[in-house]
Amino acid sequence: MIFLTRRETFNTAHRLFREDYSAEKNLEVFGKCSNANWHGHNYELFVTVSGMADPHTGMVINLKTLSEIVRTNVIEKLDHKNMNIEVDFMKGRLASTENLAIAIWEQLSDLIEKNNAKLHCVKLCETENNFVEYFGE
Amino acid sequence: MIFLTRRETFNTAHRLFREDYSAEKNLEVFGKCSNANWHGHNYELFVTVSGMADPHTGMVINLKTLSEIVRTNVIEKLDHKNMNIEVDFMKGRLASTENLAIAIWEQLSDLIEKNNAKLHCVKLCETENNFVEYFGE
Amino acid sequence: MIFLTRRETFNTAHRLFREDYSAEKNLEVFGKCSNANWHGHNYELFVTVSGMADPHTGMVINLKTLSEIVRTNVIEKLDHKNMNIEVDFMKGRLASTENLAIAIWEQLSDLIEKNNAKLHCVKLCETENNFVEYFGE
Amino acid sequence: MIFLTRRETFNTAHRLFREDYSAEKNLEVFGKCSNANWHGHNYELFVTVSGMADPHTGMVINLKTLSEIVRTNVIEKLDHKNMNIEVDFMKGRLASTENLAIAIWEQLSDLIEKNNAKLHCVKLCETENNFVEYFGE
Amino acid sequence: MIFLTRRETFNTAHRLFREDYSAEKNLEVFGKCSNANWHGHNYELFVTVSGMADPHTGMVINLKTLSEIVRTNVIEKLDHKNMNIEVDFMKGRLASTENLAIAIWEQLSDLIEKNNAKLHCVKLCETENNFVEYFGE
Amino acid sequence: MIFLTRRETFNTAHRLFREDYSAEKNLEVFGKCSNANWHGHNYELFVTVSGMADPHTGMVINLKTLSEIVRTNVIEKLDHKNMNIEVDFMKGRLASTENLAIAIWEQLSDLIEKNNAKLHCVKLCETENNFVEYFGE
Repeated sequence: MIFLTRRETFNTAHRLFREDYSAEKNLEVFGKCSNANWHGHNYELFVTVSGMADPHTGMVINLKTLSEIVRTNVIEKLDHKNMNIEVDFMKGRLASTENLAIAIWEQLSDLIEKNNAKLHCVKLCETENNFVEYFGE
Repeated sequence: MIFLTRRETFNTAHRLFREDYSAEKNLEVFGKCSNANWHGHNYELFVTVSGMADPHTGMVINLKTLSEIVRTNVIEKLDHKNMNIEVDFMKGRLASTENLAIAIWEQLSDLIEKNNAKLHCVKLCETENNFVEYFGE
Repeated sequence: MIFLTRRETFNTAHRLFREDYSAEKNLEVFGKCSNANWHGHNYELFVTVSGMADPHTGMVINLKTLSEIVRTNVIEKLDHKNMNIEVDFMKGRLASTENLAIAIWEQLSDLIEKNNAKLHCVKLCETENNFVEYFGE
Repeated sequence: MIFLTRRETFNTAHRLFREDYSAEKNLEVFGKCSNANWHGHNYELFVTVSGMADPHTGMVINLKTLSEIVRTNVIEKLDHKNMNIEVDFMKGRLASTENLAIAIWEQLSDLIEKNNAKLHCVKLCETENNFVEYFGE
Repeated sequence: MIFLTRRETFNTAHRLFREDYSAEKNLEVFGKCSNANWHGHNYELFVTVSGMADPHTGMVINLKTLSEIVRTNVIEKLDHKNMNIEVDFMKGRLASTENLAIAIWEQLSDLIEKNNAKLHCVKLCETENNFVEYFGE
Repeated sequence: MIFLTRRETFNTAHRLFREDYSAEKNLEVFGKCSNANWHGHNYELFVTVSGMADPHTGMVINLKTLSEIVRTNVIEKLDHKNMNIEVDFMKGRLASTENLAIAIWEQLSDLIEKNNAKLHCVKLCETENNFVEYFGE
């Protein structure tokens, strides 16, 4: 068993807030991340899959295939978009890094399994100072 | 003469567009950066000042002073904000990295001169793949 | 369950040595790290906590809370200090990266638990070429 | 138990291909990585060992010892070489990052055990966008 | 006047040697970089252009245009290739980082001028420890 | 003319203070950098030399030669040392990054000229957030 990771990047606007909170409550809970006119980040996404190195190709999964799956199903939907408004798989979810990592897992897990590998980890870096990791359970 | 650089970071939403362009024209000129619902970046700002190392302190300018000038006049106004809507010194300017670097220069130049140093360069990184540098003229 | 990591930095002097070793023995075991007049590093600290994303806030723990815990109990005690002389929680311990990571774990573990998360990993980078990770057991 | 990681780098030429594939088949499977005249990378290698911090030295393993083991048995054999032609421990193996990580594990595992630590992970970065991790089974 | 920089990357094999030197002389002058079976690098290329920020678009040059010029005329010719054998604009030149930077300048200078900007600097990083800069004269 | 840069690193303890200042005055001027028991940094040094690419070798200066000059005359004197106490070329100078960059220039300038290149810039990074550059005048 070996683990292979692909890095992709995207630039997205978002804000942390709840409609059922007052502006004051949102500010108290989410701080400047609740700014009503949005802010944004250069996100770094690391998708790790596990599997055996194929004896014919020496690869867990073809990196080109993995990159295409991630770009088509995650990056193109998030890049240069507003995470709260425009991203189908974030509809109805608070736009935290934690929730986004979980949603990205859901987007990718089955597609990677169809390519004979297993999604192991979604690591999502919001800034150079904070990131989350989700292992699917 | 020696050059001293301070790095600061901020996370901001923006879009590139002109109100006098149609949506199609904006898309043609600015690409996905014109997205109507904004996108955003983790910006890195490098402020370089020049001067002689003070014979008493060995410093061009006190780094704490420089950092406070940059934070008060630039970072706090941009961080977790919308560059097009909320930043006083970007009012009426297209929110490109080039224009932002020039506007940051204008914010800082006099304040640094009052502290016996000279602003030499504003370097502004939008992503890991592109940045601009402005030297004041 | 999701894992959230916060990065903090500090600049600290230290040396590796034992008082019960001769200078020669210290040099043999610890090399140039035993230099009697100290040396120092820019340390990078990654604190990883685990928990469920809160259904109301989408967060494992409020990043501001986590950062304040780490800064108050670790960074302020280490930053611009001498690790061997001035850091209460390193008293009586050899100032290796390994021991420092374990001591940082002890500083943080209970405080994070009081905030409804669980300390998962302390990762401490001494240089770009070496780092340690401690998982609490 | 604590985990200690050492980073080393090497610059190596390679290509991905099978002699029993036609040029077309190699291109289809391995893409531009099959280029007949080779290409190359700046590889980053992270070797992680586990063990108890020695009560006398505070160390899992002496970093100098670990670095010497990795340099002698891995880096000197790969650096400024052709991975397909000149590296004894890659003879007969397809030169994928996956296979190289496994081969590096085999080179290091016993030697680290003789120094009272346990090899935990070989992480091998081929570019800033992809890396593999191998844990020995 | 403002300076805009675009980063691109490519992975290439090369060796430093002269056909009119003996193997011993090549080794003496070029060290392990003369290895007969090649080695390779992940190169980072920074292309800096200068100009005025266009009053309509706020841009020195459209980044998409700049990126396309660099990719078509430099990256596609170098990436996953052998610099000594397969790159038309390096024919007859010793494959040093210095010479490659000069050759890249010659590839790009006129094309950037046709897009109303001026090529200012080609910066080429061979490893994390060495890079060259060429300003055209 | 082309510019070639070599990066080297060193880990050093220091403090900013003047003996003719009181402890209070030192704290006021130099802040926590005046800590009496020292602190330290991982310094990054970038030495840039200029010259023509030699028509026989394609090189401004042999990187091995440049690295040896920098290591022998700068790195070995600073690495794992106390900058205020143990470094001959910093004797009698306040241990600021500015003064260290100037002193490094003085150490290297003549030696590089003897190797047919010209020292162009000494860039010295103290942390990820601040660095100085010195061009010799």
